[in-house]
Amino acid sequence: MEATREKVMELATRIYELDGEVYRCLGSSLGRVYTGSRTDCIEGLARLMCSGRTAYLLRSELALVGNMARTIPDKDDCARVMDTYNALLREVQSLPESFGTVDIQDKERIRLNQVNLRERFSENDHLVICIGRSQGCAGTDIGFALADALKINFYDTEIFNSVLKRLQAEQDQVPDSTGSDVFSFQPSGKKHSSLRQWLQTVDRYHGLPKEDAVFFNQSDLICQMAKKEDFIVMGRCADMILANNRIPHISVFITAPFELRVQRMMETHGLDHRHAARLLKKLDRRRGRYYRFYTGLEWGSPINYDLCLNSASYGIEKSVELIARMINRQLPPPEQK
Amino acid sequence: MEATREKVMELATRIYELDGEVYRCLGSSLGRVYTGSRTDCIEGLARLMCSGRTAYLLRSELALVGNMARTIPDKDDCARVMDTYNALLREVQSLPESFGTVDIQDKERIRLNQVNLRERFSENDHLVICIGRSQGCAGTDIGFALADALKINFYDTEIFNSVLKRLQAEQDQVPDSTGSDVFSFQPSGKKHSSLRQWLQTVDRYHGLPKEDAVFFNQSDLICQMAKKEDFIVMGRCADMILANNRIPHISVFITAPFELRVQRMMETHGLDHRHAARLLKKLDRRRGRYYRFYTGLEWGSPINYDLCLNSASYGIEKSVELIARMINRQLPPPEQK
Repeated sequence: MEATREKVMELATRIYELDGEVYRCLGSSLGRVYTGSRTDCIEGLARLMCSGRTAYLLRSELALVGNMARTIPDKDDCARVMDTYNALLREVQSLPESFGTVDIQDKERIRLNQVNLRERFSENDHLVICIGRSQGCAGTDIGFALADALKINFYDTEIFNSVLKRLQAEQDQVPDSTGSDVFSFQPSGKKHSSLRQWLQTVDRYHGLPKEDAVFFNQSDLICQMAKKEDFIVMGRCADMILANNRIPHISVFITAPFELRVQRMMETHGLDHRHAARLLKKLDRRRGRYYRFYTGLEWGSPINYDLCLNSASYGIEKSVELIARMINRQLPPPEQK
Repeated sequence: MEATREKVMELATRIYELDGEVYRCLGSSLGRVYTGSRTDCIEGLARLMCSGRTAYLLRSELALVGNMARTIPDKDDCARVMDTYNALLREVQSLPESFGTVDIQDKERIRLNQVNLRERFSENDHLVICIGRSQGCAGTDIGFALADALKINFYDTEIFNSVLKRLQAEQDQVPDSTGSDVFSFQPSGKKHSSLRQWLQTVDRYHGLPKEDAVFFNQSDLICQMAKKEDFIVMGRCADMILANNRIPHISVFITAPFELRVQRMMETHGLDHRHAARLLKKLDRRRGRYYRFYTGLEWGSPINYDLCLNSASYGIEKSVELIARMINRQLPPPEQK
């Protein structure tokens, strides 16, 4: 304990002296963080260093000394002072009662996060990017373009249905309750028209309602695919399906401000503002409900994805570049136009 | 119009034939997307190509052909077919009524977004990274570490107060209503104890309440700094202040699942679960209120930032790496340990 006290006093003194050194190099009292008497300042520093929960204040004070030091005009002086600063910072951080960093990690997520993984294994695992997106934010276009840029496969509702249809003669083609099927040729509003029909359907899918059967078929397919190939999957709660099956992947959510999405909907679907806004809300609600139903989590909340992207801050092309950059290193750069 | 019809039919035929070619290369009927009669398939393709709002279905079908083509075992065949595929895709995209991409862009945001900017100018503008974060997600540690890695300055509430204190003899030291001041030596709960005192304070700050004066002083400082140096700024609604003043920057929001943040709070502040959870909620609420009050926007919603990060998916070190990678190209890589 005494040894620590001694160490703390020594560090406090060195911090105080570093501050003085920065001040001398800058030749301005504005560059000085500790302006009281030497003894008081050092005592104060020592107290802060051992204060546990308020030690972060010391971290800020040190950062301020660092900020000042970086403005030293003489390059040699600056480099020397910054070296001292960095060494001091590390020593203070290693004190038990100081602001030593407590990390935040979801061990399971980190284990499954391919952004981390790809630096360790690179070739041993398949790259699976799960993209959730709000309606009208160009998320699907970003997905298509990203798949093209990375030269990997792309799966959305339509493709899943198509693949499942061929893989399972039994597969029913009922469009499920999310995604773009609102515009498809078979309107999705149709429900089982009678109790008898409903029971027949449930019966056919081992006691599951048809939508659930579609969901579980798709889930199986996603997990199988992830063992065999690199791909991008749009929606389908693929992120949670893969996480639950302990399969590495990256989860990205793409969205954009409501008004911009409305504008884009108006353009892509030839709607007026009122109809576009209404449709947008409806489709967002539907996706949110689907995600909540199958995952129990809040759709579009940053805590449920590795990364959220505001596509309106970048546009489609730059969004693709940004995601590609996020997973880069071992990956080919996005295709040049 | 007739010319377009001709073009559409030609493209539809080429798509149909490409699909057949993929099928031949794969030697399996599973690889075939269009299985009906040639005439029907081509007619269907042509219809879809001109259908505007449902044309995205064609995009999915084409992606499926592409997915299949990528599995062709013979490398030469695969490359040849993929070339044909890419050329076709571009031609179809350029049709007026097809799924040609409508971009999503907030022109102002894009103009101010340094991730975009740095590729154009690289040295002419200063790098300003605005980090918002929920309590307990290690956002501050990520900010500190990122500033160290990028060798740029770091500003948080404490440092701002300290800088302002020195810049303005008049500057009042009242901690404002967000940030970590809950743990500071001067409890922030204290309010103006009487109407008279309140009036005095308002008077002193040109008719503004004290908190607003602090906010506007900080805002000025942030804008001034952004013209002179690279830095990271924590909170302070800096993203919106800079956007309103048309100063380029990058806005990042960092958060993590609630339970993980509670665990971390327990460790960093030596609290039990109940107290940590309660404090966390209180501080999140306070930050949300502050942001809403000064920006009118929802704090922590992905639409208000360029990027949102789940720190628990990476941990502090990898989060720093990820942000550094996002803005890389012209920037030095994060410091190696």
